[in-house]
Amino acid sequence: MDLLAETAPDKTTQKLQSRPVPRIDARHVLHPWADLSSLGTQDALVIHSAKGVRVRDSAGKSYLDAIGGMWCMTLGYGREELAEAMADQARQMAYYTPFGDVSSEPAARLAEKLAKLSPGDLNRVHFTTCGSTAVESAIRIAQYHFAAQGQPQRRHVLSRINAYHGGTYLTQSLSGKSADRTLFHYEAEFVHHLSSPGYDPDRSNISAEAKLQELLSEMEAEIARIGPENIACFIAEPIMASGGVLTPPEGYQKATCDLCHKYGILYISDEVVTGFGRLGYFFASDVRFGLAPDMIITAKGLSSGYQPLGAVLISDRIATALARNAPADKPVFSNGFTYSGHPVACAVALANIEIMERENICGHVRDVGPYFIDKLRALRGKDIVYTVRGDHLMACVECWTGEEVGPTAANMALAQRVDSYCQEAGLLVRPYENLCILSPPLIITRSDIDRIVAILSEALDRAEADQKAGKI
Amino acid sequence: MDLLAETAPDKTTQKLQSRPVPRIDARHVLHPWADLSSLGTQDALVIHSAKGVRVRDSAGKSYLDAIGGMWCMTLGYGREELAEAMADQARQMAYYTPFGDVSSEPAARLAEKLAKLSPGDLNRVHFTTCGSTAVESAIRIAQYHFAAQGQPQRRHVLSRINAYHGGTYLTQSLSGKSADRTLFHYEAEFVHHLSSPGYDPDRSNISAEAKLQELLSEMEAEIARIGPENIACFIAEPIMASGGVLTPPEGYQKATCDLCHKYGILYISDEVVTGFGRLGYFFASDVRFGLAPDMIITAKGLSSGYQPLGAVLISDRIATALARNAPADKPVFSNGFTYSGHPVACAVALANIEIMERENICGHVRDVGPYFIDKLRALRGKDIVYTVRGDHLMACVECWTGEEVGPTAANMALAQRVDSYCQEAGLLVRPYENLCILSPPLIITRSDIDRIVAILSEALDRAEADQKAGKI
Repeated sequence: MDLLAETAPDKTTQKLQSRPVPRIDARHVLHPWADLSSLGTQDALVIHSAKGVRVRDSAGKSYLDAIGGMWCMTLGYGREELAEAMADQARQMAYYTPFGDVSSEPAARLAEKLAKLSPGDLNRVHFTTCGSTAVESAIRIAQYHFAAQGQPQRRHVLSRINAYHGGTYLTQSLSGKSADRTLFHYEAEFVHHLSSPGYDPDRSNISAEAKLQELLSEMEAEIARIGPENIACFIAEPIMASGGVLTPPEGYQKATCDLCHKYGILYISDEVVTGFGRLGYFFASDVRFGLAPDMIITAKGLSSGYQPLGAVLISDRIATALARNAPADKPVFSNGFTYSGHPVACAVALANIEIMERENICGHVRDVGPYFIDKLRALRGKDIVYTVRGDHLMACVECWTGEEVGPTAANMALAQRVDSYCQEAGLLVRPYENLCILSPPLIITRSDIDRIVAILSEALDRAEADQKAGKI
Repeated sequence: MDLLAETAPDKTTQKLQSRPVPRIDARHVLHPWADLSSLGTQDALVIHSAKGVRVRDSAGKSYLDAIGGMWCMTLGYGREELAEAMADQARQMAYYTPFGDVSSEPAARLAEKLAKLSPGDLNRVHFTTCGSTAVESAIRIAQYHFAAQGQPQRRHVLSRINAYHGGTYLTQSLSGKSADRTLFHYEAEFVHHLSSPGYDPDRSNISAEAKLQELLSEMEAEIARIGPENIACFIAEPIMASGGVLTPPEGYQKATCDLCHKYGILYISDEVVTGFGRLGYFFASDVRFGLAPDMIITAKGLSSGYQPLGAVLISDRIATALARNAPADKPVFSNGFTYSGHPVACAVALANIEIMERENICGHVRDVGPYFIDKLRALRGKDIVYTVRGDHLMACVECWTGEEVGPTAANMALAQRVDSYCQEAGLLVRPYENLCILSPPLIITRSDIDRIVAILSEALDRAEADQKAGKI
């Protein structure tokens, strides 16, 4: 690294220059999902600049970004319109409190736009700062909804193994990834986990229909065990994202929603990843999966990752019930955040939606998505590829040594080797256990898809050779 | 309202024009702390533009902003440098994942700067999106810290009545404002509330020393009751902000910190409001209150409200213990958020700190703060003023009818009338129960302080006249 260039003064850092940035980071930052065993000793990969679907690190190396930031960088890097939207709003009115009956124009207009884009009667929007705080709010709204009807015991929540719903105490408790269950404390009194619904037709020994019946039977039995009169809601990603791109058997989403409604349980669709174009639509719940959710969670693609922003979309039916049933002597909705509906973030989201509509980003994803999946699935022929699964622009390659299936030490080492070779060749994929997860920006072209798959293919070949030579 | 002007097309809204913005907001937004009984029927006050310490609503009316957004608009509105900092960073690299060992230059440099500004060995920074998510993270870190030492039962948390720590399930449970306890569900298994420490020498019938001893005795008794071996941490605002600007008796902060450390309990100082200049220093814990906290929470003024951002500052001692004690077979720190250390937000925070240092904002607050409090305290002579309390640029006026003290219906009606008269005269104060809370931007001048107090004084006189005439 060029130390002189690194420490050259610029506007924001002239008083801070000292060591190279990766060293500063190692000394002072505790990252989400950091490896604690190397805290302070491992230099970070510092992403310094980016344009389109490419990013450059602080040493000047360029990469094709096949993970889209963290599922969120949908319109690609360096969008001048989004930079201007934030600066314009910051100049005009950067912030005012959203509490009570005070609002801002970007928040009001974004809420109206979300109501138009979302299915059914999801016309009421509660803004938050990210997906986690939106999930928190949705669960709390479901519990309030029943408590206000004289059913405070109706506060239990159904979630699923392999779900990912956020990073707070409650949302980590709702999540069901065993890799994430560590020495933190988790809520276990009112949170319940059903089985993971992932179904891979290429690698299953039962039919999709049989798997579906198995999942539904388990769900109905769990509802009976807890008692439907005690359950406020079920929360589910239509396709599990961070859990490993796990797609349920055909019909699962609608059938579970119907089951919930049969028992008066609210259905919360977590579209933080699947929404805003990744599956080819602003919201996938309705058009892709036939769902009629009572609430939808959105974040990530909502602002194309340019701003921290999340939202809960609430049905008119629920909103009306909240208004009707709130106690007359204390009708305050005591939930929300200083930065709920932040004007700058909402202005960026409005500009993001305008660009998505103008450039027909959803149509583009519906066009290149199947091509992306087909190309990736051609990698299944390799010995170290156990399976390839995905839907439009969310996908993963699962590695194995040919022996045991799943996140064994050997399989994880293999996937890490693939990841290293990709990074060496200028491609960033997201390593998770024995998976390589891919969620490129939605503007990805066929030629860049070809490049992603070519690099990944070669990395798989090199890792396979290493494994066969006993070098892993 | 000029409907034509309201619906005139502009860059971000040309496809969305329709009804006036306050109507759109009433139809589609569920605000934090909304009055559910008027959901959908009450038009919002839409703040449309702002400059310095003044804001303008969508009908064109201008107000002096005496609440600083929501304790957070510290540098004032329309700061060109902050607008440019966000746009520049968005152009260069708007976002990349902060997970694992990946970082960005603004996050690394901000962490280094925070380590320099904060007291003691608080040199490790975990970024979040707001104060709530920072408090969540701090509590979880405290629990992990002890679990990793083989003490998973050490997960109980001490908080206090009248505390405010955020809007999520856990942070609302930590909060202890009775006004906020509604039909939502709250954690009560490991969260415990001590008495409110607020002490008003003007209105107390016991000495500060007696009050302090009372509070410390209660705390020690509660620690004994729960068992120190079961308590992970105590979380406290040095001065309670949203609870009603409640200042503990002299020496309380340090004595409670010493008591925690005597029992091996971690002390978390929530400086979301008191930090970043409001009491005249970047952090008040050390220099103002003699505290040696194990973690400090910061947000709000950290970005001057221009961006959603929060952070936990962690002592090297805790960070080192986390690294040393994390299990070798699963050392992942599974806490954090997609938008932790968002590059745009961190770039704004760096520019904010640079401006604060260049303009000596903390020195300015130390200069005008006592003037502000003195001026306000002159209002105590009025019949409807029960007391005035505060410290530098956080203050409140407590109203009463002269009969019962506290948030009675009559006292609250009185404060609401004061608030209405202020708003009518072009001054925004924050109404809360029977209080008018004031937390102006830190750039407030003596002449604007004079104006705030003059308008408030007249509003108090008018409300008092109404009350005496039986019109409230």
